[in-house]
Amino acid sequence: MNSAEKFKYYKQIIEDNLDFGTKLVHDQSKNVGEAMLYSLSAGGKRLRPALVMSACEFAGGKAEDALVHALAIEYIHTYSLLHDDLPAIDNDDLRRGRPTNHKVFGEAMAILAGDALLNTAMDIMLSDTVKNIDCQDLFKRKVLATREISRAAGVNGMIGGQVADVENEGKKASKELLQYIHENKTGAMIVGAVRAGAFIGGTTEEELEDLTRFASYLGLAFQIRDDILDIEGDAAKLGKNIGRDIELEKSTYPVIYGMEESKRKFNELNDAAINILEKYGERATFFIDLIKMMSIREK
Amino acid sequence: MNSAEKFKYYKQIIEDNLDFGTKLVHDQSKNVGEAMLYSLSAGGKRLRPALVMSACEFAGGKAEDALVHALAIEYIHTYSLLHDDLPAIDNDDLRRGRPTNHKVFGEAMAILAGDALLNTAMDIMLSDTVKNIDCQDLFKRKVLATREISRAAGVNGMIGGQVADVENEGKKASKELLQYIHENKTGAMIVGAVRAGAFIGGTTEEELEDLTRFASYLGLAFQIRDDILDIEGDAAKLGKNIGRDIELEKSTYPVIYGMEESKRKFNELNDAAINILEKYGERATFFIDLIKMMSIREK
Repeated sequence: MNSAEKFKYYKQIIEDNLDFGTKLVHDQSKNVGEAMLYSLSAGGKRLRPALVMSACEFAGGKAEDALVHALAIEYIHTYSLLHDDLPAIDNDDLRRGRPTNHKVFGEAMAILAGDALLNTAMDIMLSDTVKNIDCQDLFKRKVLATREISRAAGVNGMIGGQVADVENEGKKASKELLQYIHENKTGAMIVGAVRAGAFIGGTTEEELEDLTRFASYLGLAFQIRDDILDIEGDAAKLGKNIGRDIELEKSTYPVIYGMEESKRKFNELNDAAINILEKYGERATFFIDLIKMMSIREK
Repeated sequence: MNSAEKFKYYKQIIEDNLDFGTKLVHDQSKNVGEAMLYSLSAGGKRLRPALVMSACEFAGGKAEDALVHALAIEYIHTYSLLHDDLPAIDNDDLRRGRPTNHKVFGEAMAILAGDALLNTAMDIMLSDTVKNIDCQDLFKRKVLATREISRAAGVNGMIGGQVADVENEGKKASKELLQYIHENKTGAMIVGAVRAGAFIGGTTEEELEDLTRFASYLGLAFQIRDDILDIEGDAAKLGKNIGRDIELEKSTYPVIYGMEESKRKFNELNDAAINILEKYGERATFFIDLIKMMSIREK
């Protein structure tokens, strides 16, 4: 399997199992299950869960061992988009080419479906972890992975970045603040995904450190790419409205650094990320190819 | 210490440590910390965290061992109230005698502060658990407690009940649906609190089973009491508006069963709860007194 096929393979496993947590929903509240599944199955790259599974393999485990944590991270990512789209926050009507959750299920249900996705993510990770309670080593590793993901989603991770982002709409952010937003709003979950997968796979200290640095470069590059595509991208291909950042007066890389410098920074981060993992040779192929797949082709 | 003093003691520990998780908030997003703390420190009975700590003691542990999980459950309870109060859901202006979170911090921040409370709850429980990673027994017990709380908050617990409640506003619920809502919206977290504390304290199977039955009666009784007080209570004492259930056309015990039958059911549940724990003699004093403290005095 080459890396593109591998990514497809991970994506397929994830998409085949998206209802893993929503199946738990009781009949009396089944609409929340539908609302959850609506947003979960709206497509998307599935980058974060693919990172969980590939990092698990990189560290010596089987991708399937990390499946529940991979799903959980996709649930958390989905809840964050769902709440971000709400009228009180970004007020978006379109997400991945479809009406946003609150447009279909109403605002009350969209809030609760977001909450339910986050709760279910934690629930499935912990249940999966407890299943391994008698296998001391894997049990510990799954607890560490669960902790990693919960920390990445929290106030010193994604939510912290979201808050700073929302609070600074309409203001020109300092470079430090922009860095904080990007590192947390997007970066934290990408780092968390890689670290969680690595834990489950039985990572060494050195591998973990390298993967963490790799993921933090990847996460920042990924966000800069998103900022660039919001200006230069193709709405139909992206499945979302273009120019929303500018409409919402968000501070983005192109706004603060200019387009040319943003692209330079993006390429620099990609190179740095590749450099870190090159010493691992073939084992790192998927991660290195991932960086290459993400590159922005000049028009 | 008699039971009233004991409750006060638990309450004090909780209130002294409410900022345990909000202290983690980064300077760049410190407003979310303030919003979280605003709702956390708005008062309230602190019943759920007191149950975590008392169940831990009942099962042979120290109350302080369960402190982080007790705080986490209060964070989760607070997030659920905060989101319930939002304009799109119950649209409440007043909670515990103060303006609701979105009235003070705006709707966007209130949504994110709720999310942050839930995330932080998971984060502090898992960090606390991982701290005990080298003490195999306590580590396992804390994982089980964390799982218990996450399950109680999830789609087969609190969120499930919230969804069914919101979806059935304005309709007369069947008795089965009312039972489902009460067992989940309120009951699940009360059962979860007791079971989580019991795990941390090192409970036996039999104790766990008895405590679970006790807590499920307590939870239902507690919700019926709430329904009754929404009609017969004193707004000033409760710190919230009276008659909101009727305004929102919620299905409550008095609506479905009538007031007299509701009070009969309430007393019956209290008696049943006491019966289960009587065999434990003095060890159960706090729980039994708790039931007595909760009783509704006739006007």
